[in-house]
Amino acid sequence: MSTNRQGGTERTRIAVLHAEDEGPPPGLDSLLGTAELMFASDQATLNAILDTAEVLMVTDFRTNLVERAWPYAKRLRWIHATSAGVDRLLFPALRNSDIPITNARGIFDRPIAEYVLGLILMYCKDFHGSLALKTKCRWQHRDTERAEGKRVLIVGAGAIGRQIARLTGALGLHTTGIASRARAEDPDFDSVRGSDELLDELPKADFVVVAAPLTEATQGLFDTAAFNAMQPSARFINIGRGAIVKTDALVKALQEGRIAGAALDVFEQEPLPADHPLWAMPEVFVSAHMAGDVVGWREALSAQFVENFERWRRGEPLANQVDKQRGYVPQA
Amino acid sequence: MSTNRQGGTERTRIAVLHAEDEGPPPGLDSLLGTAELMFASDQATLNAILDTAEVLMVTDFRTNLVERAWPYAKRLRWIHATSAGVDRLLFPALRNSDIPITNARGIFDRPIAEYVLGLILMYCKDFHGSLALKTKCRWQHRDTERAEGKRVLIVGAGAIGRQIARLTGALGLHTTGIASRARAEDPDFDSVRGSDELLDELPKADFVVVAAPLTEATQGLFDTAAFNAMQPSARFINIGRGAIVKTDALVKALQEGRIAGAALDVFEQEPLPADHPLWAMPEVFVSAHMAGDVVGWREALSAQFVENFERWRRGEPLANQVDKQRGYVPQA
Repeated sequence: MSTNRQGGTERTRIAVLHAEDEGPPPGLDSLLGTAELMFASDQATLNAILDTAEVLMVTDFRTNLVERAWPYAKRLRWIHATSAGVDRLLFPALRNSDIPITNARGIFDRPIAEYVLGLILMYCKDFHGSLALKTKCRWQHRDTERAEGKRVLIVGAGAIGRQIARLTGALGLHTTGIASRARAEDPDFDSVRGSDELLDELPKADFVVVAAPLTEATQGLFDTAAFNAMQPSARFINIGRGAIVKTDALVKALQEGRIAGAALDVFEQEPLPADHPLWAMPEVFVSAHMAGDVVGWREALSAQFVENFERWRRGEPLANQVDKQRGYVPQA
Repeated sequence: MSTNRQGGTERTRIAVLHAEDEGPPPGLDSLLGTAELMFASDQATLNAILDTAEVLMVTDFRTNLVERAWPYAKRLRWIHATSAGVDRLLFPALRNSDIPITNARGIFDRPIAEYVLGLILMYCKDFHGSLALKTKCRWQHRDTERAEGKRVLIVGAGAIGRQIARLTGALGLHTTGIASRARAEDPDFDSVRGSDELLDELPKADFVVVAAPLTEATQGLFDTAAFNAMQPSARFINIGRGAIVKTDALVKALQEGRIAGAALDVFEQEPLPADHPLWAMPEVFVSAHMAGDVVGWREALSAQFVENFERWRRGEPLANQVDKQRGYVPQA
């Protein structure tokens, strides 16, 4: 782990890259004594400010601008992403550089776990069915499902997957995690299997939850074979990254009744195009990449960056440092 | 507590009253060695079979037929209701008789608690908003709410209310119960207040959940004053009985933005009429009195009755005996 000692009293030049439609992140004012903030939301501005920036804060997880601006990043010493996923930053030149990447590990865990638990209960209790009947003013009793005792397979046993296991486990669901390697014991999962056992575990699950980072190992992981391995009664939940799923294979599995439903917060293409078949499928739930975004999330992300920046100024090791070869922050 | 010793080997005549559109309850075949089952779903048949029945099993919680058949119930010694609420059976003649009433306490607790937790998460995460946007193929990011730390006021601290407190408490929500009397300590609720403190507690709650039986004390309890006491951001959830709520006062409170939403599984009039204003309100969730009805619920209800019937045959005290003056099964 490299430390970054910062000498003297000069202000650190920090480039902040944000999405054009979002505006600059709030809550960075406390930095102004020790840092100069330079904001960009387009390629030309980013190129220009990277010329002098030592630190880059990236608040837009969808952007490719950093890769294109890379030749201009002459003095850069640290990149912080205000997202859990850093897939867009793992282009070869950055991956192979010695510039550390840190992420927002921890901020989204609990909100996302609540979101996933809510979706599981929504399916068990058929809330979407009740809301659809409501539009027709139609009273119709149905039997519902007991959530307790259901089996959840959580693909990705990092900080977010672990929190999902805690909350669903607290409600009496059985939890299995899929990690890069199987583990003999785990404090939060009933069991943790290796990624080579995915196809053996899929047929046992009532709910399959994707909470993995997008890496070479997970890209397109949910394909026809994976959906074929699931039970026809099973529901698929993706709060990870859209490209972990082959969307066409998912749509087909749903159309052919090979799985019973899908709740999707992330998509290969975001926003999901208005003419996409997923919108019209009754057992599909769509939300706009917001599972972790509880009120105050932007402020919480900035506070986490400010804390890490203070560590960096003091020459201390950075928190949440991504393993750039694996594509995520390894377990402590 | 009265015991009901049953002498000799003669078969007990059991009258079973069920709703016409539901058919007789499943899972009673095991009784046929010791009992003769007589089924009714209309007044004339009920009157006729009550003439000889010693036991009455009531599977239709909405019916007034028992009250009207009362003069014919000459040999009746025990009534079992396959519902948590027994309000329809507490007419004066039965209330003042020495015939015990038992209920389905325990069967619905956990399913209803899951249902309520799901509704709380639905509101926090705006699932109903996402489903409404989905009908328009519209991608729209919103900030959501953190469920952890929210305050739930559970009106009714019996078996169902207690289970709601357990599940919501396990998720990190703060739980206050309203019981007939305040309690110094409670294993499941953060605190339990007396019913005289309801109006003091309502302003503190993010979610108000009605899990009380319908009694003289709770009839119309949620009126204009109660809704006025709630926060404009609060949501109201009723899985108890419809008549605990003055529906017109609820509709007005919603229309005027004095509360933020309502999820209703029970109504003053069931089915909810197709032209009722509640159907069209976007922040209202409607379901068809089904919160506790997980797959296999009818069989579970019958199994519970069969077990109690065996107790009765052996002359043992009945389980789940309702205090007919208070209108519910008192805490053990």
